[in-house]
Amino acid sequence: MSSRVTHAPRQSARSKLIDAAHMLVRKQGYAATSVDEICAAAGVSKGAFFHHFASKEELGVAAAEQWTARADELIFTLPPWVRIEDPLERLLAHIDFRLFMLEGPPEGFTCFVGTMVQESFASSEALRHASEASISAYCERLAVDIEAAIARYRIRDGVSAISLAWHVQAVLQGAFVIAKARNSPREARDSVLHLKRYIKMLFDGGENR
Amino acid sequence: MSSRVTHAPRQSARSKLIDAAHMLVRKQGYAATSVDEICAAAGVSKGAFFHHFASKEELGVAAAEQWTARADELIFTLPPWVRIEDPLERLLAHIDFRLFMLEGPPEGFTCFVGTMVQESFASSEALRHASEASISAYCERLAVDIEAAIARYRIRDGVSAISLAWHVQAVLQGAFVIAKARNSPREARDSVLHLKRYIKMLFDGGENR
Repeated sequence: MSSRVTHAPRQSARSKLIDAAHMLVRKQGYAATSVDEICAAAGVSKGAFFHHFASKEELGVAAAEQWTARADELIFTLPPWVRIEDPLERLLAHIDFRLFMLEGPPEGFTCFVGTMVQESFASSEALRHASEASISAYCERLAVDIEAAIARYRIRDGVSAISLAWHVQAVLQGAFVIAKARNSPREARDSVLHLKRYIKMLFDGGENR
Repeated sequence: MSSRVTHAPRQSARSKLIDAAHMLVRKQGYAATSVDEICAAAGVSKGAFFHHFASKEELGVAAAEQWTARADELIFTLPPWVRIEDPLERLLAHIDFRLFMLEGPPEGFTCFVGTMVQESFASSEALRHASEASISAYCERLAVDIEAAIARYRIRDGVSAISLAWHVQAVLQGAFVIAKARNSPREARDSVLHLKRYIKMLFDGGENR
């Protein structure tokens, strides 16, 4: 199997390096991935690498920022269900979409920043901070929909939108770890279904959906 | 801060190396941890290392097995609440205990095998398999208590004991990733409280507990 990334025509070297970092780190982690491997996968020279990035760490930070932009586009902007008017239905469609993504080999659906921060949180404050910013951006964006659902339907126990958004993220990150351990998305998918049942039970009338 | 592991008197070199692996991998990941660092942290010579283990990978496998034994002792055998007669109360006490553990720096409460498999699932089948066996052992043991709770109290939607056990594990693994990203256990604790609320809602009469 080739580990070369397939690129859009005329993609910039910087963008190819970021794509390669996403691919390699998701597959083998951050520490195990060398600058040489990233260059080879991107089809870019080492000179070009150091023209764009001072270090692997600097690429890691840029790749986390790009990961946020990619998630915002793929999860919150492009899918047709983001235009569902009912905020609770929109939230449940979000969960269904996350479930739908859990298919094929784990490196295809797992999280670049979650993987990177798992091993770098204590070694690199720059990588931890960049990963945190990416995960927080997801949670804050998701909390907007949850807040709208709370405003329209009541929620139990005064659960806050941001707290539930972090829980959604925790379940997804944990499901990724389980899928990697099991070498199968089965238990991960099951866990997202538990999450969906929980969300339905939290909202008044949610269980009838 | 010293990175030497504090050992029980007369602990064997093998056991010191496993303790050091647990400590270093939880803090900085598997790939970033060298045999030299493990030896230094264990206070054991490199000769002694290779007397016990053919490679870092072999130590990783042994450390996963020891992690299972440690979890079985610390979580399912020693705590007084494991002798609570009511299985649902015992299950909720288990969740409270997992919540109680989420304090201090992440390397002190996060999971050795979850961290290791996150980066090694595609690179080392031996490490993936050893990590999977450890996580599965936890889930299968927890499922015994959940099964007993289902037998005494009904559970919604025909949820199976093993499926709920994997969900508990997914929430914990995800909470660890979030705690590392946030450099704080706050959102991780909150996520375990969501899990507890879910479990209570799943069982008949659970919400009154």
